[in-house]
Amino acid sequence: MDILFKNVTAVTMQKDNPVIYNANVGVANGCIAYVGKEDKTASRIIDGSNKTLMPGLYNCHTHTAMSLLRGFANDLALEEWLFQHIFPAEKKVKEIPGAVRIGALLAIAEMVASGTIAFSDMYFHLDAIAQAADESGVKVNLSNAVLAFDDSYDFYKDPCYAETLNILENYHNATHGRIKAEASLHCAYTANETAYRQVTEFALKHKINMHVHLSETVAEHNNCIEQHNLTPAQVFEKYGVYGVSTTSAHAVWVTEEDIDILARNNVTVAHNPVSNLKLASGIAPIKRMLEKGVNVALGTDGMASNNTHDLFEEIKLASILQKCASNDPTALPAWQVLEMATVNGAKAQGRQGGMIVEGLEADLVLLDFNNLQQTPCYDPLLNLAYSTTGRDVAMTLCQGRVLYENGEHKTIDVEKIKHEARKIAEAICK
Amino acid sequence: MDILFKNVTAVTMQKDNPVIYNANVGVANGCIAYVGKEDKTASRIIDGSNKTLMPGLYNCHTHTAMSLLRGFANDLALEEWLFQHIFPAEKKVKEIPGAVRIGALLAIAEMVASGTIAFSDMYFHLDAIAQAADESGVKVNLSNAVLAFDDSYDFYKDPCYAETLNILENYHNATHGRIKAEASLHCAYTANETAYRQVTEFALKHKINMHVHLSETVAEHNNCIEQHNLTPAQVFEKYGVYGVSTTSAHAVWVTEEDIDILARNNVTVAHNPVSNLKLASGIAPIKRMLEKGVNVALGTDGMASNNTHDLFEEIKLASILQKCASNDPTALPAWQVLEMATVNGAKAQGRQGGMIVEGLEADLVLLDFNNLQQTPCYDPLLNLAYSTTGRDVAMTLCQGRVLYENGEHKTIDVEKIKHEARKIAEAICK
Repeated sequence: MDILFKNVTAVTMQKDNPVIYNANVGVANGCIAYVGKEDKTASRIIDGSNKTLMPGLYNCHTHTAMSLLRGFANDLALEEWLFQHIFPAEKKVKEIPGAVRIGALLAIAEMVASGTIAFSDMYFHLDAIAQAADESGVKVNLSNAVLAFDDSYDFYKDPCYAETLNILENYHNATHGRIKAEASLHCAYTANETAYRQVTEFALKHKINMHVHLSETVAEHNNCIEQHNLTPAQVFEKYGVYGVSTTSAHAVWVTEEDIDILARNNVTVAHNPVSNLKLASGIAPIKRMLEKGVNVALGTDGMASNNTHDLFEEIKLASILQKCASNDPTALPAWQVLEMATVNGAKAQGRQGGMIVEGLEADLVLLDFNNLQQTPCYDPLLNLAYSTTGRDVAMTLCQGRVLYENGEHKTIDVEKIKHEARKIAEAICK
Repeated sequence: MDILFKNVTAVTMQKDNPVIYNANVGVANGCIAYVGKEDKTASRIIDGSNKTLMPGLYNCHTHTAMSLLRGFANDLALEEWLFQHIFPAEKKVKEIPGAVRIGALLAIAEMVASGTIAFSDMYFHLDAIAQAADESGVKVNLSNAVLAFDDSYDFYKDPCYAETLNILENYHNATHGRIKAEASLHCAYTANETAYRQVTEFALKHKINMHVHLSETVAEHNNCIEQHNLTPAQVFEKYGVYGVSTTSAHAVWVTEEDIDILARNNVTVAHNPVSNLKLASGIAPIKRMLEKGVNVALGTDGMASNNTHDLFEEIKLASILQKCASNDPTALPAWQVLEMATVNGAKAQGRQGGMIVEGLEADLVLLDFNNLQQTPCYDPLLNLAYSTTGRDVAMTLCQGRVLYENGEHKTIDVEKIKHEARKIAEAICK
């Protein structure tokens, strides 16, 4: 074995064996090589006492480079925020050389330090994000979202096409699928039939997933109905988009019928509770989705509407928000919301993962359970859901490689990235 | 000067001078002795670059000893949770010698490490909590809530009376008001007229504040209406309770008329957004209260319904939850929610504080703004409201005394307290 976590509380996320106390978990050749109680030898032995080991987390909807816009403009009305602040600032992010890579690395460093090892990123300059993911050692599903308003729109002439193809050709195999391309439509009412058909055709041809925004705001939902006489989910089903394995971000305003559409098409919903509250979008009917068998994962959305990449915030908020919204304190219990952050996220990204099981890739997070916020610990699942923050993370591994340990990043020069990010922030303000 | 924070970003919470960049803030004899740009000398100089200094936070509703029940029972229906789990466990907390002091110290350590220097605690064994607050150096308003169902109820024969009087006589003056007693009625429908009158009379006689629960759940609100034909706020006004300076915790189900009652009686509402969501109590109409001039402060409530004492969680959630509930992303902007955690909290507790102003007691929190979650920082107020967690706290002072610094507690033996807390947790499970 390369690494052995000894005497650790292992939260496996396996239904039939959820928590193993005093477990030994071994890592070899990037994979989980042993999970059990036997004594094993390894090149490196890590004392797991007072620590909890869980699968690495999946952030299934973000725009990493927007970390450069954290706290840039907040507390504003949506239109003013978007058109007067965020869009002009994003134009600068697009133009400043290297900004997207720096923003992505800033976000990745924050994610890795708080237990996230995989994310789904919808943005531009995909090569810069792929490079950031490659050098930092994380997993990412990357997409550049199509916006098509014009009748003459041709996806194959859209930079989105070339950018996505580049990821597919130059990263997918080279990183053993660690960096994957996805097709993307920004949302239903910002695309037309040609775009739906071409992007779907492209995704099916290359066997890649789809990433869309769905009914995030009531305005977007209603605009789509006005335009198509169909809800966004109905549009995506009608035009075959949901024939592709799809992640739909937000799904705040979906109807009962929409939820049935999501369920029967095996669509994943990426739920972003912090962003949905902060932008006053609404509260997604997650409990209902889960009842109907929809695969629900979690996301942070971009930093302009959050403003942190700590997925443990989303875990806790997703649970307590559904309890209140459904007037049921038993809604979204700890286990279910932890599944959303792990197993369901892996499923969304088309990966084998999100569990501690022999043979899976060793994507692992070790958490300090000896601090005040974790004391006492009656049940590690309850503490993970309601007491844990990303700051409890002691160690993060992706494919068996240690990316972060006790405050130190092993693959990212964090001081340099922070310095560069501040310089870019200054340039954005000019 | 005893301490000088040099070249720091000072968030003063003064309306006319909210943020001073590159400020020097001096502390002498437990008070803030200087705030400005001049160079000063001091016994100890602390480099404030890449750090933010703000007033210490006020947690205006908690039950500290319930930290022993963190994660003890969650995801349950209210009745089952309360009657089958929490009440039997609290009975044990009451009986295990020293448990309340250990629970209070566990909570205080967590609060101090996350920037809170004052709290309002409603529990039993007040002497044990007072002792914990005294030895740890924080500020507390302490109350033991009256429950009176019986016609023969006499407050002056209730242990609540003796406990409260003990705090008043043995702590209030001895700690220069750092530890204060408050009168308390648990809530409107769990007391009778005798209790209302006697407790109010007692509070007025000793010039102490009142701490009550108000309309936390719809059941409690409606039970009161059934019993009295009045809402809880109407009951408290009618019987003169609100003639005492009062903190009303929760106020989730208050009506427009109730809000007017709160406003005209200068009642503080202690808003506990995490607990209100987790117990599926509802969303308090905080935006409306603020519009009508109610003093709104923040609380964490007890750890059985939260499960952390990090007030920065409440700050962020209070803001984003109101944005969503009122369908207005400009609701509860950063400044307003930071006021709730500082200035409004001080006002609730009847203290001069919650600001960085010369002459006030030096209750200060120094935050690391050099970490990933704080990068970049366009506006320290936005970062404080939306990116900060208690884990960013580098240093906490109360009355000029350093209680916590870079992970080390100066007044609490944290390893011992955690050890004791775990032993008590084991005893509770037996």
